[in-house]
Amino acid sequence: MAATTSGSAGNRIPELRKDAISNRWVIFSPARAKRPSEFKSNSPAVSDQQLHQRCPFCIGNEHQCAPEIFRFPPDNPDWTLRLIQNLYPALSRDLPSPAPARLANNLTGSVLDGFGFHDVIIETPVHSVQLLDLSPHDVAQVFLAHIKRIHQLATNDSIKYVQVFKNHGASAGASMTHSHSQMIALPVIPPNVSARLGNMKDYFEKTGKCCICEIQQEDLLIDTSDNFFSLVPYAATFPFEIWIVPRHHSAHFHELDAEKAIDLGRLLKLMLRKMSLQLNNPPFNYMIHTSPLHSNASELAYTHWFIQIVPQLTLTAGFEIATGCHINPVFPEDAAKVLREVNVP
Amino acid sequence: MAATTSGSAGNRIPELRKDAISNRWVIFSPARAKRPSEFKSNSPAVSDQQLHQRCPFCIGNEHQCAPEIFRFPPDNPDWTLRLIQNLYPALSRDLPSPAPARLANNLTGSVLDGFGFHDVIIETPVHSVQLLDLSPHDVAQVFLAHIKRIHQLATNDSIKYVQVFKNHGASAGASMTHSHSQMIALPVIPPNVSARLGNMKDYFEKTGKCCICEIQQEDLLIDTSDNFFSLVPYAATFPFEIWIVPRHHSAHFHELDAEKAIDLGRLLKLMLRKMSLQLNNPPFNYMIHTSPLHSNASELAYTHWFIQIVPQLTLTAGFEIATGCHINPVFPEDAAKVLREVNVP
Ligand SMILES: Nc1ncnc2c1ncn2[C@@H]1O[C@H](COP(=O)(O)OP(=O)(O)O[C@H]2O[C@H](CO)[C@@H](O)[C@H](O)[C@H]2O)[C@@H](O)[C@H]1O
Ligand SMILES: Nc1ncnc2c1ncn2[C@@H]1O[C@H](COP(=O)(O)OP(=O)(O)O[C@H]2O[C@H](CO)[C@@H](O)[C@H](O)[C@H]2O)[C@@H](O)[C@H]1O
Repeated sequence: MAATTSGSAGNRIPELRKDAISNRWVIFSPARAKRPSEFKSNSPAVSDQQLHQRCPFCIGNEHQCAPEIFRFPPDNPDWTLRLIQNLYPALSRDLPSPAPARLANNLTGSVLDGFGFHDVIIETPVHSVQLLDLSPHDVAQVFLAHIKRIHQLATNDSIKYVQVFKNHGASAGASMTHSHSQMIALPVIPPNVSARLGNMKDYFEKTGKCCICEIQQEDLLIDTSDNFFSLVPYAATFPFEIWIVPRHHSAHFHELDAEKAIDLGRLLKLMLRKMSLQLNNPPFNYMIHTSPLHSNASELAYTHWFIQIVPQLTLTAGFEIATGCHINPVFPEDAAKVLREVNVP
Repeated sequence: MAATTSGSAGNRIPELRKDAISNRWVIFSPARAKRPSEFKSNSPAVSDQQLHQRCPFCIGNEHQCAPEIFRFPPDNPDWTLRLIQNLYPALSRDLPSPAPARLANNLTGSVLDGFGFHDVIIETPVHSVQLLDLSPHDVAQVFLAHIKRIHQLATNDSIKYVQVFKNHGASAGASMTHSHSQMIALPVIPPNVSARLGNMKDYFEKTGKCCICEIQQEDLLIDTSDNFFSLVPYAATFPFEIWIVPRHHSAHFHELDAEKAIDLGRLLKLMLRKMSLQLNNPPFNYMIHTSPLHSNASELAYTHWFIQIVPQLTLTAGFEIATGCHINPVFPEDAAKVLREVNVP
């Protein structure tokens, strides 16, 4: 393929590549290079009014955005949530569904056309409103938008996995300040997901049980609701990392119904408020860890979806990049105790 | 063990923990929480003289440092390099060698005492000198210090792997500005290393060859020297990532001799200068990827050490944390072309 070896980046389609050494897909996305950032240092202070005029995600500025996929309520100019295409997508929805991976011309690597979907969920029409300001019902609407979109994406046989995630704050990677989350629908199962499924399968084969159903909460517990509990995981990768876990076995996030979504909205909001109060409104990411779209029955028995919330308090540096091993200065039971005791007014 | 469930963080020994879901060791290190940072925002500007007085890594301030392990030249007050203990170590050298990993009381996790070594290499006595300012001979001295220390650490049977790495600049995670690198000697083989060895073994079993010996450089090549070549890898995880690879098969970095170390020093210096000129002195990390200390003969046939240099130009955010899949806006052949053409005065 000519595109893999020549041509200016601007005209090239995205690619997924991996080499024999790390054997992990990397997405090469020339479109992403043009993405602007609202977090430039030394930019002059701007007023709320100016922010609103400039921000493509604010109500009234819909024309500045990439095409809409749907909104809540449907067809309503007074929308509360919009799901749109990402203007600088990591993967391209306009390619033919990908051919199977082929060996690169250098033989020690493989390559795949960068087919996939990259969407943005604008979580509120108002610039100054954050996710933790929304009512449990409105947080639930965000989840229900993710779920509606996953059902649409699942009709495409080439899509293997959908990653839902949120970046909040500059050092958590956000380039836009207006509250939003993102979804990337991938033509491959990404490396951490394969690894997670493999580990959960091993546990199931040894014990006959789902390892997430078996989590002993003990001193790691932060809070519970009718359908969920939140805890700091036993081997938390990051300080003050929080998981929200469905109490009852469920492989797919997109099985969630409207009533449980409100219960989840309430618990997520509470965790974000505790985190914000205790850690002084830190930058954070949250990620929804679910199962591949077309799972078989045996996979459904041992996989269990959950949400991971990570305040960005430490930097990933040379040691972590090299080894994949993280250094966490805070013991999980200490973080859980602190978060349990935060008083939310 | 009482330490795993109670007690204030200050009195606790470090631990390695993993859970059944991600199955990756995480280092819990209460000592790291106390580490100061020289990159505090809003700190008043200080003069070079003040910097020198305050910086524990500057010549004359040796008493502000954790104990020295050795220096070059030995016993010389006019040292050019010092290898010292890290004052806020991730792992503790004062524990008995670790007992085998045991199941945590929550059953879905395992735990190991945090035994290991964490050292700092002060690469120059002078605060304002950076690694790329050193002569090839002096860069070689840094590598020879790493190597000397690896030979010392290898005499401890509990140490399985030594990670050498450098953080330069605040957003590459550095907390100290004075030029230095670090080494962490681990009682386990870390996850990325196991994965890398497994992948290289698979390739060897399929082809009878080492996949690094087989790399086709083509349009990915940046430069060559007598014993090394530098390239942008085919599936580079990060934009403008550079690898320096020994031309001849060699499993262990610490096999490097003094003459080759100078050749490597020259090529590393050139790559750092190209990167600095082209990307405006970016923060960066470099990591030495080598083989476990006590490798068997078959492992030696398919593993091949190399150096990875990563300028920090993008942020790892929700998508990357969740999936382990990175988004790189720059095609490797484009990055290689740019770096090839940078004119170093
Ligand atoms: N007018 C418009 N219409 C539609 N979409 C628009 C738009 N203007 C901007 N966008 C998109 O809105 C998104 C905002 O996303 P975030 O702020 O969460 O982080 P971003 O994706 O930029 O990068 C962070 O997250 C990714 C994924 O984790 C990391 O690769 C990266 O390094 C990190 O900075 C961007 O992806 C951007 O392309
Ligand atoms: N007086 C003294 N004597 C001896 N040693 C001293 C000392 N004063 C400080 N030190 C040590 O010097 C080291 C300097 O290291 P770096 O600047 O490369 O990054 P650091 O290890 O702080 O963290 C970065 O690297 C690690 C590992 O990649 C990440 O976990 C982390 O998030 C990131 O910020 C620190 O480890 C510190 O403990």
